[in-house]
Amino acid sequence: MRGAVMFGPGDVRVVERDEPRIVEATDAIIRVSAACVCGSDLWPYRGVEEMQWPAPMGHEYAGIVEDVGPAVEMITPGQFVVGSFWASDNACEICRAGYQSACVNRVPMGALGAQAELLRVPLADGTLVATPDLPEDDLIPSLLAASDVLGTGWFGAVAAEVGPGTTVAVVGDGAVGLLAVLAARELGAERIIAMSRPEPRQRIAREYGATDIVEERGDDGVARIKELTSGLGAHSVIEAVGTQESMMQAIHAARPGGHVGFVGVAHDVALPAMDLFWSLVHLHGGPAPVRRFLPELVDLIWNRQIDPGKVFDLELPLDEAQAGYEAMDGRTAIKVLLHP
Amino acid sequence: MRGAVMFGPGDVRVVERDEPRIVEATDAIIRVSAACVCGSDLWPYRGVEEMQWPAPMGHEYAGIVEDVGPAVEMITPGQFVVGSFWASDNACEICRAGYQSACVNRVPMGALGAQAELLRVPLADGTLVATPDLPEDDLIPSLLAASDVLGTGWFGAVAAEVGPGTTVAVVGDGAVGLLAVLAARELGAERIIAMSRPEPRQRIAREYGATDIVEERGDDGVARIKELTSGLGAHSVIEAVGTQESMMQAIHAARPGGHVGFVGVAHDVALPAMDLFWSLVHLHGGPAPVRRFLPELVDLIWNRQIDPGKVFDLELPLDEAQAGYEAMDGRTAIKVLLHP
Repeated sequence: MRGAVMFGPGDVRVVERDEPRIVEATDAIIRVSAACVCGSDLWPYRGVEEMQWPAPMGHEYAGIVEDVGPAVEMITPGQFVVGSFWASDNACEICRAGYQSACVNRVPMGALGAQAELLRVPLADGTLVATPDLPEDDLIPSLLAASDVLGTGWFGAVAAEVGPGTTVAVVGDGAVGLLAVLAARELGAERIIAMSRPEPRQRIAREYGATDIVEERGDDGVARIKELTSGLGAHSVIEAVGTQESMMQAIHAARPGGHVGFVGVAHDVALPAMDLFWSLVHLHGGPAPVRRFLPELVDLIWNRQIDPGKVFDLELPLDEAQAGYEAMDGRTAIKVLLHP
Repeated sequence: MRGAVMFGPGDVRVVERDEPRIVEATDAIIRVSAACVCGSDLWPYRGVEEMQWPAPMGHEYAGIVEDVGPAVEMITPGQFVVGSFWASDNACEICRAGYQSACVNRVPMGALGAQAELLRVPLADGTLVATPDLPEDDLIPSLLAASDVLGTGWFGAVAAEVGPGTTVAVVGDGAVGLLAVLAARELGAERIIAMSRPEPRQRIAREYGATDIVEERGDDGVARIKELTSGLGAHSVIEAVGTQESMMQAIHAARPGGHVGFVGVAHDVALPAMDLFWSLVHLHGGPAPVRRFLPELVDLIWNRQIDPGKVFDLELPLDEAQAGYEAMDGRTAIKVLLHP
């Protein structure tokens, strides 16, 4: 089968890979309907994150079940399924507390390479959520978005304790940031301030529910948020970038007692504890436990109440994966969908 | 009047200071019944924190109201009162959300010097809580403890989301750490693991409700907490030291989705965001909004349900303040009470 493999920074090729097969009795094999390139795939692409080369790429997926292992009870061949970027048993104490991304038996999907025609999904019953029926084609991008970027933005909003009547600031206008805006709207935020510069991203932010746009960054961005919030700061801030500047911007933009949900993968970031101390914010984040939210998100998409697939502004055949990485790296695309 | 003044690191003298007087219409003047030396007073004493010398010292106080300004309506002369180390109006949006230590009109009591015979308390109606009557002498240490160390330990426990059935670890066996143990017990924790070495502190920890003692620190301490919690970590960890090691110990000792409440004043501490990211903990802390908890704490003390005053293991006349600082600095005393 064909699959995208990174051979080193900046070097993604679609090559022939061995077809995956059932290894554990709890595995499923799915035929990938759509995969995509993640902002976090850019860390190794840019040489910021070390990997063992060559590395099969991709951890976001939606597709049709081809085969299941003998211990799989709920997932059956022929179903259309979405799963998170962490396979999880959804049964351990940590999963039951809603932190499936830290499941005691978790398996990172990234190592299995979802940018491919076929994909092995461990812990299939715990990991996968099936749609009520096969979806219409136009729903597939949104269902794929639920696999990571929507679930991650949603977790950012939940981690930031967004709720009815809150004022929310979103740092970052990538797919996760934009979908955090959508999540904040769905969770009842009264005011949503998106920090974004490019006009196409501002437009999507507004379509997803942003009431205000702030173009300034760093201390200037914080000052604008304060101006918009009677000098106090936002109740909730969602951080969806992962740099030193964006993290400090998020912490400083929240009011005392406010909440910062951070979902940017924070490389080489060190938070001065005195800033955290004096800010009196709540800080929570990490790899999103997308599985916690998947049933609700799939339901919202199935009923066409939300349209997260709008973040895919470039669709390419899988064979052109390298062009997809280039577009994401150069920020000429928000999010790239790959058709296997 | 007599008052303790720090003239430089390691140099505390009790000298004649001007008597405080009503400055703002919302002020009260209290005659200090008891004051004390705080762990945070040791930062400038050790030269770690810069101050403008000479500096009047002390921010914890309980005493009898001598005089009030014309705008004070609830507090009246003759009342016995306790207040927080931040004066707050208890009326602004931030106070009403429970973050009186970040009140938009807050005044730091430390600048006013509570280790003295008389003390000016700004925003008296918002800051002070009166006891139902004049207290018996033996209650005064406990009421004084409510001013900071009890309220701070309590906030640590609340910030760490301690509740019925939780397993709690407490990093730090100073007065705040020990009172965090007491708070965890009062908030319904099922298991309380105190990280402590000296036998006298371990004994108080057990009297306050610790069910387990861990003597190891750093990674070894984390490993012991994991052993005691089925490999998962504690639901709630309270950090009451403020060093790099203690903060990392607290973060790593919590389970994914768990909560770390930090109340140690974290000097020169930088938290690697990747550790926070992968730990999936909630982090919340800062200067405790003691005023939020004071009515409840005063009530518990008044009814002799809790005995936080036990942390004062050395009582000295105010004139011997320097000896009190030395005892705290050398850890020969847990907490020093000063009699003006």
